[in-house]
Amino acid sequence: MSEPVLAPADVDAALAEQGIDWVRQDDELTTTVTLRDFAGALAFVNEVGAAAEAANHHPDIDIRWNTVTLALTTHDSGGITRRDVELATEIAALRDGQ
Amino acid sequence: MSEPVLAPADVDAALAEQGIDWVRQDDELTTTVTLRDFAGALAFVNEVGAAAEAANHHPDIDIRWNTVTLALTTHDSGGITRRDVELATEIAALRDGQ
Repeated sequence: MSEPVLAPADVDAALAEQGIDWVRQDDELTTTVTLRDFAGALAFVNEVGAAAEAANHHPDIDIRWNTVTLALTTHDSGGITRRDVELATEIAALRDGQ
Repeated sequence: MSEPVLAPADVDAALAEQGIDWVRQDDELTTTVTLRDFAGALAFVNEVGAAAEAANHHPDIDIRWNTVTLALTTHDSGGITRRDVELATEIAALRDGQ
């Protein structure tokens, strides 16, 4: 059974409540993180990857030298669900640890 | 001094000679590699990253679960140079090793 898609207002409320700077863009949650260099970007991507594997939920990941853009959606549900908000929150915590 | 941009015909000749399946697309060399799963994609990206660091030349990298798209260009030169063809060739060798 697929997760229910969250109402946009509920997504925004969850982001605001958790104080994370992901942005709701159509059917995706996205964020862009700038690291010190390419090696820093790759290290961050590996941390994101570990969190993604643990959650069995995988963001789209774009690396542009020191800049990493992530996009989360739940394809099976056709939109943003609780799983996306949860993984976004975990990834935000990784960033705080840098 | 920046590397000279290669003529499109010279890029195509280099790709053909080396038997690698990168594609010349406007000012970039691109390739898309499908791995067995996300973990395989991440492992491949780490190998690409090591080659990129060694060459001090970094492709754009997009990860979509088990699929990795790479794009190489020499920004300083405004197009495809010898450095791009060389790194593309190294990355192609990584793929052959998988």
